[in-house]
Amino acid sequence: MTNEEIKDQVYEMGRKARAAALALAVLSEEKKNEILKAMAGGIREAAPQILEANARDLAAGGERGLTSAMLDRLRLDAERLEAVAAGVEKVATLPDPVGEILGEWDRPNGIRIQQLRVPIGVIGIIYESRPNVTSDAAVLCLKSGNATILRGGSEAIHSNRALAEALQSGGERAGLPDGAIQLIPFTDRESVAVMAGMDKYLDLIIPRGGKGLIETVVSLARMPVIKHYDGICHAYVHPDADQEMAVKIVVDSKTQKPSVCNALETLLVDEAIAGEFLPKVASALAGKNVELRGDAATCAIIEARPAVDEDWSTEYLDYILAVKVVPSMKAAIDHINEYSSQHTEVIITRDETAAEAFLRQIDSACVFHNVSTRFSDGEEFGFGAEIGISTDKLHARGPMGLRELTSYQYRVRGEGQLKAP
Amino acid sequence: MTNEEIKDQVYEMGRKARAAALALAVLSEEKKNEILKAMAGGIREAAPQILEANARDLAAGGERGLTSAMLDRLRLDAERLEAVAAGVEKVATLPDPVGEILGEWDRPNGIRIQQLRVPIGVIGIIYESRPNVTSDAAVLCLKSGNATILRGGSEAIHSNRALAEALQSGGERAGLPDGAIQLIPFTDRESVAVMAGMDKYLDLIIPRGGKGLIETVVSLARMPVIKHYDGICHAYVHPDADQEMAVKIVVDSKTQKPSVCNALETLLVDEAIAGEFLPKVASALAGKNVELRGDAATCAIIEARPAVDEDWSTEYLDYILAVKVVPSMKAAIDHINEYSSQHTEVIITRDETAAEAFLRQIDSACVFHNVSTRFSDGEEFGFGAEIGISTDKLHARGPMGLRELTSYQYRVRGEGQLKAP
Repeated sequence: MTNEEIKDQVYEMGRKARAAALALAVLSEEKKNEILKAMAGGIREAAPQILEANARDLAAGGERGLTSAMLDRLRLDAERLEAVAAGVEKVATLPDPVGEILGEWDRPNGIRIQQLRVPIGVIGIIYESRPNVTSDAAVLCLKSGNATILRGGSEAIHSNRALAEALQSGGERAGLPDGAIQLIPFTDRESVAVMAGMDKYLDLIIPRGGKGLIETVVSLARMPVIKHYDGICHAYVHPDADQEMAVKIVVDSKTQKPSVCNALETLLVDEAIAGEFLPKVASALAGKNVELRGDAATCAIIEARPAVDEDWSTEYLDYILAVKVVPSMKAAIDHINEYSSQHTEVIITRDETAAEAFLRQIDSACVFHNVSTRFSDGEEFGFGAEIGISTDKLHARGPMGLRELTSYQYRVRGEGQLKAP
Repeated sequence: MTNEEIKDQVYEMGRKARAAALALAVLSEEKKNEILKAMAGGIREAAPQILEANARDLAAGGERGLTSAMLDRLRLDAERLEAVAAGVEKVATLPDPVGEILGEWDRPNGIRIQQLRVPIGVIGIIYESRPNVTSDAAVLCLKSGNATILRGGSEAIHSNRALAEALQSGGERAGLPDGAIQLIPFTDRESVAVMAGMDKYLDLIIPRGGKGLIETVVSLARMPVIKHYDGICHAYVHPDADQEMAVKIVVDSKTQKPSVCNALETLLVDEAIAGEFLPKVASALAGKNVELRGDAATCAIIEARPAVDEDWSTEYLDYILAVKVVPSMKAAIDHINEYSSQHTEVIITRDETAAEAFLRQIDSACVFHNVSTRFSDGEEFGFGAEIGISTDKLHARGPMGLRELTSYQYRVRGEGQLKAP
């Protein structure tokens, strides 16, 4: 395909999505839930075709030499596909954010102002290899009244096409507007550039994937982008910490699932307790095969590989932990505000005053007191589902649920009020 | 200056602003109000220097052949400067949005989640010739706990420097952190490009000015931009309108101040009443010297210059109104969703059901029923002050006050909760 042909095709999808968005915005909650149930049905009915398409992706991936971890991310089977369908049905049970009244007040001149949630419009989702994102992203956008244009990675293109087709055609039986869920059916790189420039038809792009993908989208996009960057999460163990609790929180934050953005990457230990605490935590982490990279003060107390500068800004996503001894809470806060990716940080202490000061001075989306960083998650926050964890500060910060997929509108009612006296 | 020198200097300002933002984020409301009062004092004390600097800008503007309207926008005098100082003091009386609790809930595992407003961080403001923006933007950002980097137009550079210096040095006497309010002291175009690329130090850019400026910033920016584009505002006169009220609302919306973004630009009249209503409204508008540009149906009823396609998407900001006869409310809604800049639209009708349907189906920031479009304004909404009217859908939509200059943070408190069972 030429770039011109790609542009024409993606713009045509944009036009259809814009029309669909206006129709979606006025659907009732009941109607949207009916559609979601029909979409789950669509997936179940199309299971043979979806699994067959997935087998083609897996075969191509094998030929291309994808690692077994990558192939596993790509793989669908009957059980995983049923989980995808059940996930769609679950979204039907979540409260509809559209129409929620955010504020309502009267002005002295008698006009009545109401601020209420409305859908954003058309959301572009650009993602990499997991085919379940096709369904997860599309249904969260739908429940919040938005149309979506999906652009998945080449590894999963057959699976994605089959899933998107099952969702749209299943949903249409219950009244899903044409064009509400569209997948770009090819994976030429140019399609990302075209989406990024299509601000007439896309109100928002959410890139879900690695840093390279996000950087590309950010540098090209003319519309807002909500970024889900790294999680370089920190724990600070205060002199007045319950050390047994601190060991457990550090071990849980680091090892309960190291491959995710809310896993712990750097441990800061106050020097007042470093001599006592570091051996305890090192022994617990050794039991989980965690490699430690320590600053000089740490290496003087426990065995650790000497940390280099880069360690303080690395998201390992692995059984590795950077460890630093800090002279004070202020030094811990300064280190975090310098190196953190503003995702999630935790202080462990029994001192409530110190904890409150820490929470207030840290410029991150989520700041925790005596809780594992692994709770930084839409599901754990009670959102029912999440589209991701934003490391941006505008519009949505931290775990993003259905509400974060909405905008708002002011509706103003009067009896002929004029500005001129 | 070379581009390299510009970059170094702007980045150095960015570093200072980031440090100032962390200090500002923890200032109490009382402290910020003290600082604001000291800033107003700073302006009053530096009045001779500011007016002298402004005289230099006016002289240079005269030589460059600025129009008298442009010179008037640029001009400060004792009275206007006192209004600027009073504006600073007024912001001190507005409620501080920082710390406002947006939500608070417990999870079944006992963790307590709190979502509360925090400052955004560092905000870049890029604007054109009005020197009062220097003060207005800086103090709204300060009250909401943000540091600002200001980049004004070359016409007002001397006035802007004097104002920024008066604000910062006045404020410092009451404890304003160094670097909280910084003006780029030169106006090379490169400085805009440097700001747009400086996502490490700028969390948000707000361009205030013409379409060309906004387009430039959008195409370069790596961080979120909140755009204040045109207001192509529509009024739809429904068959069941109180026609006397409709005439008044149309005249007020169009003529009370035609040069602003919430002025009316297009009138849509339902064909059921066009024959009766158009002559009435035309006569009232003729009394205000408004030029009409009508579609064929309009021109068949009243005297009007024939409208061309471009008229439907033009923000005249002048005594000109595009007029179209529509066959139904649905046609009016479709026209608006196609041509509007999603700023403000109004329906005039006595039919509540029709009004509600109209409000629900229009995809604009502000939708009005029986109210002049001129009320689409932060002051009129009761925000006390506004930084502008956003035509974006993300983060801030419509009139932007102090709350819209904040982000939020999740603070989570527990007793050692772990994810692993």
